[in-house]
Amino acid sequence: MKKVFLSEDEMPRQWYNILADIKLNPPLGPNGKPIGPEDLAPVFPMNLIEQEVSTDRWIDIPEAVLDVYRIWRPSPLVRAVSMEKALKTPARIYFKNESVSPPGSHKPNTAVPQVYYNKVFGIKKMTTETGAGQWGSALSFACSQFGMECKVFMVRVSFDQKPYRKAMMEAWGGQCVASPSMETKAGRDALERDPETPGSLGIAISEAVEAAVSDTTGQTRYSLGSVLNHVMLHQTVIGLEARKQMEKIGEYPDVIIGCAGGGSNFAGLAFPFVVDKINGKQIDIYPVEPAACPTLTRAPFVYDHGDTARYTPLLAMHSLGHAFVPPPFHAGGLRYHGMAPTVSQLAVEGIITPRSVQQIEAYDAGIAFARTEGIIPAPETTHALACVVEEALKAREEGKEKVILFCWSGHGLLDFGAYEKYFTGKLQNFELSDDEICNSSKMFKDFPKPAILKSH
Amino acid sequence: MKKVFLSEDEMPRQWYNILADIKLNPPLGPNGKPIGPEDLAPVFPMNLIEQEVSTDRWIDIPEAVLDVYRIWRPSPLVRAVSMEKALKTPARIYFKNESVSPPGSHKPNTAVPQVYYNKVFGIKKMTTETGAGQWGSALSFACSQFGMECKVFMVRVSFDQKPYRKAMMEAWGGQCVASPSMETKAGRDALERDPETPGSLGIAISEAVEAAVSDTTGQTRYSLGSVLNHVMLHQTVIGLEARKQMEKIGEYPDVIIGCAGGGSNFAGLAFPFVVDKINGKQIDIYPVEPAACPTLTRAPFVYDHGDTARYTPLLAMHSLGHAFVPPPFHAGGLRYHGMAPTVSQLAVEGIITPRSVQQIEAYDAGIAFARTEGIIPAPETTHALACVVEEALKAREEGKEKVILFCWSGHGLLDFGAYEKYFTGKLQNFELSDDEICNSSKMFKDFPKPAILKSH
Repeated sequence: MKKVFLSEDEMPRQWYNILADIKLNPPLGPNGKPIGPEDLAPVFPMNLIEQEVSTDRWIDIPEAVLDVYRIWRPSPLVRAVSMEKALKTPARIYFKNESVSPPGSHKPNTAVPQVYYNKVFGIKKMTTETGAGQWGSALSFACSQFGMECKVFMVRVSFDQKPYRKAMMEAWGGQCVASPSMETKAGRDALERDPETPGSLGIAISEAVEAAVSDTTGQTRYSLGSVLNHVMLHQTVIGLEARKQMEKIGEYPDVIIGCAGGGSNFAGLAFPFVVDKINGKQIDIYPVEPAACPTLTRAPFVYDHGDTARYTPLLAMHSLGHAFVPPPFHAGGLRYHGMAPTVSQLAVEGIITPRSVQQIEAYDAGIAFARTEGIIPAPETTHALACVVEEALKAREEGKEKVILFCWSGHGLLDFGAYEKYFTGKLQNFELSDDEICNSSKMFKDFPKPAILKSH
Repeated sequence: MKKVFLSEDEMPRQWYNILADIKLNPPLGPNGKPIGPEDLAPVFPMNLIEQEVSTDRWIDIPEAVLDVYRIWRPSPLVRAVSMEKALKTPARIYFKNESVSPPGSHKPNTAVPQVYYNKVFGIKKMTTETGAGQWGSALSFACSQFGMECKVFMVRVSFDQKPYRKAMMEAWGGQCVASPSMETKAGRDALERDPETPGSLGIAISEAVEAAVSDTTGQTRYSLGSVLNHVMLHQTVIGLEARKQMEKIGEYPDVIIGCAGGGSNFAGLAFPFVVDKINGKQIDIYPVEPAACPTLTRAPFVYDHGDTARYTPLLAMHSLGHAFVPPPFHAGGLRYHGMAPTVSQLAVEGIITPRSVQQIEAYDAGIAFARTEGIIPAPETTHALACVVEEALKAREEGKEKVILFCWSGHGLLDFGAYEKYFTGKLQNFELSDDEICNSSKMFKDFPKPAILKSH
């Protein structure tokens, strides 16, 4: 048996909300005071804002969302038997295969409910940014399911590296432009500062927020694919399914691994298990980030903006600075300067243990998995895979029958440009110097400092 | 309920062999006489040749093949509820989703057993041709599963249109060159005739066969992704699963549809139902081909070679001529000059009813499905989709609750170049004139004529 399936009837009917179990520093407005729901109203619909601040442990998944989830969910839990053999490890390796969704990643888990709640609220058009293109594709897909318009600002460097992402979004009726663009003030300012800029998620977020709030009809809202509490909430469907699937075969994870850019696929898999760890269970939980954008592993825990133009509130998170532009490594989904406040808080409390890997090491692991398990991973996913390989080899050294569970966040079928570079030896590693990290901290030196909270 | 799953335990343990139920004209050698198994031995391993000529109705699927099938099989049967609603049809539309395999199509259903049988026979390296790239990717994937070398000759026009297919094959350790290449006599001859040739499947087959038989160590064999009897045999796992899945929900198809290039995904879905039709059941069975390469719908039933350089035996099939080069439409997998002898025979006997569609009509249907069912189809699959739309609308006109079953042969995630042309209005239709069809028949005027056999 390689795959453990759930029937559509066994799909979770509620998301798990970690805000019931941990404390967070509140988001702050321009005046340094905590913001209220009404401050976010120009950007998000009120029903999603309510979810963002809710501390209810369980939140119902609407029937219309379940109905779209059923296109690809429940996703399979797969035992990586061939890779175990190749690594000669006593560890049993399982992954939740989130690459089976139509856009090819975990992103539609939140795109679908976000579009649904906007639609219910009377919104007609969604705007967003995208890095690797996974998120923009997911939102376009979700908008096509609910008959909504979709406008995507795609970070220039990825737009150029992955020309087919635009066509993918168009296939679902979405519109995609390279960011910075001339369509927004934030974009024009960025181009004026540097006409050759590769762009960044921070700039693209500014553009998408501006495009939403400047629609005077009030029928456009912005959507964010990671970082925020309601995004993490929606993604917990991954871990809730995984729990059920592991129970079916009498397994429980000793190690949980997910790649982390803004934190959403990691959180989706890990959060439903975090609560067990808080209650005393021994689990090693590793978010894995790229060494070239080491938010959790090297950046401080601070209040910072989510975007470059500083349109967003201040969030308490690990951050490399809102204007930070990472070196041009290929995992576009891991290029964000910050990290989800919930994930950051768990790192601060020592409940999860951040790690980082270099891109060549990540691709090595990706190819090893492709040639054993068959699936070609997204560049983001390869970072988790590198960590899985390391843990499996450690289990071999220790002679331990560990159970490793990780999230296969997406496939790499639109990322062959990067694979070509890897095969021809043109891929390089990037390491940030301490000075670079230190310099970027100037961006938040005047902001308030978050409290060091202990949830337990 | 959108998806009907089978557990891995419910996966078929045997393939269905249609040669138990229909008669075929034998393949002929250069002397015009039927060939024996030994004549094929330089090209294929003997265990596969035995399968090619077997008339046993059921053939066991080896355990090692089942084990690789389990990476993605059983594939889901999906009810296209959203598309039904969009078309306001009383028809219930089901599809077998073969795009869920790692290479993204039905092709590994036969690539895996072919590589397995070669491995068992002591072969170390496989050669093949590929059009769209689906088949070359599938063989590379299968070779990576069994630790075999893989060399793929890819038709130049597709090689240029789809640069990422090469990287995909490399991800699984395969080697891919554009055809015609300078590596074979067949390739060099083709380039001498026309240095600017877009290539053809016929030429690429010649190259791959030559590369196999010219390996003096005897450790290389050729593999064909369609047309031959054993390929159709392996693909029947699609239809056998579909039968079980439909039984589970108390359904039986009134209409069966598959796109047809060489015929393999169509045959895989349809053959396990054909036997019911032979026994009197009323089913409409439609292979759908592109109007620009109308093998079944406009070409004669003749003896012809499977390749341009005439290395292969003469096969009794519908053929546009072994040197036919179709106009540059985008469904690379449907560009073959011939059609599987088994599929051709069923057409000759009137058991199946060939149809053809134009490429723009096909993409229209493809986009309509992408925006309802979510999955972006391969250009080949869109031809089936156009026929599904037509049948669903016919059911609406007639007010009939028909059950339509079709094969979603692959996804289009490596075909966005073609989608981009479609979105920008640069895609055109092609129609062959009667003169063109007539001229190409000169290629087989001196060959023997097949008998018109009646199986029943």
